[in-house]
Amino acid sequence: MVYKLPEWRSHLAGALHRSRAKPHSRYFQLATVSPEGLPKNRTVVFRGFLQSSNQIQIITDSRSDKVSQIAQQPAGEICWYFSKTREQFRFSGNLLLIDYQNNNSELIDARQAAWQKISDNARSQFAWPKPGTTRTDNLNLFAPEIPSDQEPLSTFCLLLFTPHQVDHLQLRGEPQNRCLYHLQSNGDWTIEHINP
Amino acid sequence: MVYKLPEWRSHLAGALHRSRAKPHSRYFQLATVSPEGLPKNRTVVFRGFLQSSNQIQIITDSRSDKVSQIAQQPAGEICWYFSKTREQFRFSGNLLLIDYQNNNSELIDARQAAWQKISDNARSQFAWPKPGTTRTDNLNLFAPEIPSDQEPLSTFCLLLFTPHQVDHLQLRGEPQNRCLYHLQSNGDWTIEHINP
Repeated sequence: MVYKLPEWRSHLAGALHRSRAKPHSRYFQLATVSPEGLPKNRTVVFRGFLQSSNQIQIITDSRSDKVSQIAQQPAGEICWYFSKTREQFRFSGNLLLIDYQNNNSELIDARQAAWQKISDNARSQFAWPKPGTTRTDNLNLFAPEIPSDQEPLSTFCLLLFTPHQVDHLQLRGEPQNRCLYHLQSNGDWTIEHINP
Repeated sequence: MVYKLPEWRSHLAGALHRSRAKPHSRYFQLATVSPEGLPKNRTVVFRGFLQSSNQIQIITDSRSDKVSQIAQQPAGEICWYFSKTREQFRFSGNLLLIDYQNNNSELIDARQAAWQKISDNARSQFAWPKPGTTRTDNLNLFAPEIPSDQEPLSTFCLLLFTPHQVDHLQLRGEPQNRCLYHLQSNGDWTIEHINP
């Protein structure tokens, strides 16, 4: 069966709505592959969909390991579990990094809008010492001057995740329900009910 | 600095204890790499450590995709986020599959013990139709005779994850605290405080 609108979007919206009292329901796990071919996995925050697209917005620091991983292997897989509704979404897709050098005006705007939406605290972290290196003793470096709320710091990146497959598992149900959605070349999504 | 006992174990035990009212705090996300070099990510359940080791126990169906992924690339990365304590553990390590053909007596016992610990409902799922294939219409196949609670079905596998690096991030704190633990060849773990 072919659907014009991706049905998984309404399931996801439902899960987000029913979990809205829990801020951590907007956290999911993003897996990438390192240049050595090893799996990498970390928690990131859902920053909404880009405009009216199906592109999932994430933000990241240009100095984080995932940036070099994505440069070599843009494929990613998101695993998003909602404890309240007991359902899991697995998104397979590709990642696109929008950094300060991007010259597409729409993407420049999207990066700026993402910067403007986050808190002063979150913005300050992009001025902190390099993540993942030996802990900086000088605590003052973790309390920089509050950055402009308009113009992103150069370390700030928008990461766009474009899904081409969604595996939706609902643990409630006897047996559980599981659906696989596939993006077709014409932009439509197919849906297949599969065994859990 | 070198520690004789892995300090991360006490942090993890603390997080599990403080989250004990939430069954989903025992769920984490396991990333692997497919034979095509693509990242794969899914939620699995923590089944405790094997005896007095640091090996994390997971159970899986021999017919699931991760089994063939691990056969080609045994590396895995676990991302475990505790919403209650606001901390994340990232475990890098290797996966070992213990299936019905294993002939190591200790591992045979471990697999059997894991089978005996799960519920009838959980055991029945290993007799269900093949996961991930087109949904079986015959609902009777999802209500098989309850399997023996002693002898595992042949589809039942124990998966052992041996970590060699643990990245522990505590979001509470100004700035947040982040520690990297490394397993040395002599079995000791080093600890390094790094920038969040």
